[in-house]
Amino acid sequence: MGQQDLKQMDLDFVLHTYARNDVHFVKGSGARLYDSKGKEYIDFGSGIAVCSVGHGNARLTKAIYKQAKNLIHTSNLYLIEPQARLAKKIVELSGYDMRVFFANSGAEANEGALKIARKFGEENGELKRYQIITLDSSFHGRTISTLKATAQNKMHQYFGPFPDGFVYAKDLNDVPNKISNVTCAVLLELVQGEGGITPFDKAEVQKLAKILKEKNVLLMVDEVQTGIYRSGELFASQVYGITPDVITTAKGLAGGVPIGAVMTSLKDIFAPSDHGSTFGGNFLSTSAALEVLEILFEHKQSGELDKTITYFTQKLQDLQKHYAEIFTQEVGLGLMRGLRVRDLETLTKFLNATFEAGVLVLKSGKNTARFLPSLTITREEIDEGFLRIESCIAHL
Amino acid sequence: MGQQDLKQMDLDFVLHTYARNDVHFVKGSGARLYDSKGKEYIDFGSGIAVCSVGHGNARLTKAIYKQAKNLIHTSNLYLIEPQARLAKKIVELSGYDMRVFFANSGAEANEGALKIARKFGEENGELKRYQIITLDSSFHGRTISTLKATAQNKMHQYFGPFPDGFVYAKDLNDVPNKISNVTCAVLLELVQGEGGITPFDKAEVQKLAKILKEKNVLLMVDEVQTGIYRSGELFASQVYGITPDVITTAKGLAGGVPIGAVMTSLKDIFAPSDHGSTFGGNFLSTSAALEVLEILFEHKQSGELDKTITYFTQKLQDLQKHYAEIFTQEVGLGLMRGLRVRDLETLTKFLNATFEAGVLVLKSGKNTARFLPSLTITREEIDEGFLRIESCIAHL
Repeated sequence: MGQQDLKQMDLDFVLHTYARNDVHFVKGSGARLYDSKGKEYIDFGSGIAVCSVGHGNARLTKAIYKQAKNLIHTSNLYLIEPQARLAKKIVELSGYDMRVFFANSGAEANEGALKIARKFGEENGELKRYQIITLDSSFHGRTISTLKATAQNKMHQYFGPFPDGFVYAKDLNDVPNKISNVTCAVLLELVQGEGGITPFDKAEVQKLAKILKEKNVLLMVDEVQTGIYRSGELFASQVYGITPDVITTAKGLAGGVPIGAVMTSLKDIFAPSDHGSTFGGNFLSTSAALEVLEILFEHKQSGELDKTITYFTQKLQDLQKHYAEIFTQEVGLGLMRGLRVRDLETLTKFLNATFEAGVLVLKSGKNTARFLPSLTITREEIDEGFLRIESCIAHL
Repeated sequence: MGQQDLKQMDLDFVLHTYARNDVHFVKGSGARLYDSKGKEYIDFGSGIAVCSVGHGNARLTKAIYKQAKNLIHTSNLYLIEPQARLAKKIVELSGYDMRVFFANSGAEANEGALKIARKFGEENGELKRYQIITLDSSFHGRTISTLKATAQNKMHQYFGPFPDGFVYAKDLNDVPNKISNVTCAVLLELVQGEGGITPFDKAEVQKLAKILKEKNVLLMVDEVQTGIYRSGELFASQVYGITPDVITTAKGLAGGVPIGAVMTSLKDIFAPSDHGSTFGGNFLSTSAALEVLEILFEHKQSGELDKTITYFTQKLQDLQKHYAEIFTQEVGLGLMRGLRVRDLETLTKFLNATFEAGVLVLKSGKNTARFLPSLTITREEIDEGFLRIESCIAHL
């Protein structure tokens, strides 16, 4: 289909909630995407950390095909073998003694976390502790409650009345100031995906975790973007050496098949019918996720993932040093990385120029170029991507 | 995997939010499911209306395989051809002049509807009209806001503070009584899936639609369960001869691949970044949905769907008449049907007996056996299912 026809069809029939780039992709392979005109792109965005094992991954394709042929979906009224296996695998790979609930997105996973926090704070049907503290510049989703959990004022327009019970802290150190006798939980990202990609300080996170434990306030970590080996470990919480009470995850878990998960050490917090999902944890999405985790676990075990992280980070650091007048800082964790750009205008130019040169880079916060390549990206693909970036950067 | 081992794994690693039956399925074909012991079941539940084209559908499998091999997912920052095509197809098949947003579940679709209603009621950043009226015995989802939209008191425990702005009407006739100068919308199911499967009266629905139009209050129809030809038409709204302002749908849309959609005639209600979804509308889910709609459209055009509805309904009506001491009434619309059972105890016995006899039937409300067979179920499969039901019913 021609670009202009598609653009018009999209404008005519899809609600205008996205500021779309003027391109559509027809095929992917590894970290490469091809648009309708045959132009090739190196994908450093992975559909916002979703395509964790790259595009057109043969093992993932086979797992999806095999499961689709056999059985895509049954109700959660019946046992679902790949769902139980996936829950076990996530728990065992993480080392966290938890149980898992499967939803269909990061927003739904976070809704589950909010419900866990609220039920934790409830006693005999009465709301005792209900306040959840979240952090400035966070992003937790697009449902009405997760919008309110998102501590950005611009997110709290139009759709109210929003639910009460959210309190915002300026930063990690401000969290203890916000704790009151009605606080039940803190929800935070260890690296704010939409908030600039700066990892929080490890010692500060550990200190906060200790305070929360003492005060019997839940530590809930939103790993929707940091989870599934994005940080170098299955969860960034492991890199930080903390044991959260609740973890949510989603994006990279099934390599693009919609899925979300919330896990908690409060193993009996929910009773039947407290929570549920029709699609959540079904055969297709959990079989896809099992294969993704198998691929990524092998990639990690072989040492390849760590080598890729080192290699990619070095490339970014070299770029930053080389063009220090453009990039003020290199930030990030694992393969979730950012280049702080001197101003928004330059960032916009940079994103447009890289796009023209055939590299997909994302934006984060006000002035950060965000890099979320697939975790299985090859050196050759990385080299090619950076070559293209260098080729256009002189013209900024 | 052995049944007992799986059951233990599920108990150990999955949060206990479901009251699971003691069975797990390993394969499906058409309306037939096979458990790990080789026992065959006729599936009259379709994973709660999800498996609209049956299990192991060859065309759907091929569409999923082809898309997975090529490209599962990109960000909504770029045009997505099957997403635009799917939006166009839904609009054209329905005849409603609307635009569509894709989410990942029915709950997420309804969150979108709530946001549309609220933005409709907002003026220049101020909340003017914000109240949404919903109906007793409704079910709209498991997120915090859709739980509050669900007018069942038992759903409003533990997870508060819930958002304000929901008002509950006893029934259709009570809706106008609840309209005030801060009402922006009414959200209702035309056949309450969890509330007993009794279709609302067509004349009453049309009368209400007219009143709402006059009062400039949005009519939002939750077609998460009734949509995608379940009613005999793409949407039950068409059967009712109404033109809603907003329609949500999900379950059967992609045959089991997680997807949800909200569509509205308020084509410019959202601006970029008012709403969004990472997975929503991606290549895999929308390609699957395109094939599902193609299959079901052909099934409808050929006259087969209507014949199946007539045949299945006749079977249920015969059963009801034959065992009038057990089944007090036959209710429903299209292939969304119920048998009202004389009491809960008998219903439980009936569901257990049919399960033992190799037929999957669901529950709805307090005393209704719910039938949601795949829309492509064959006469032979229907006959076999009813034969098995008859074989066990004498022992109730």
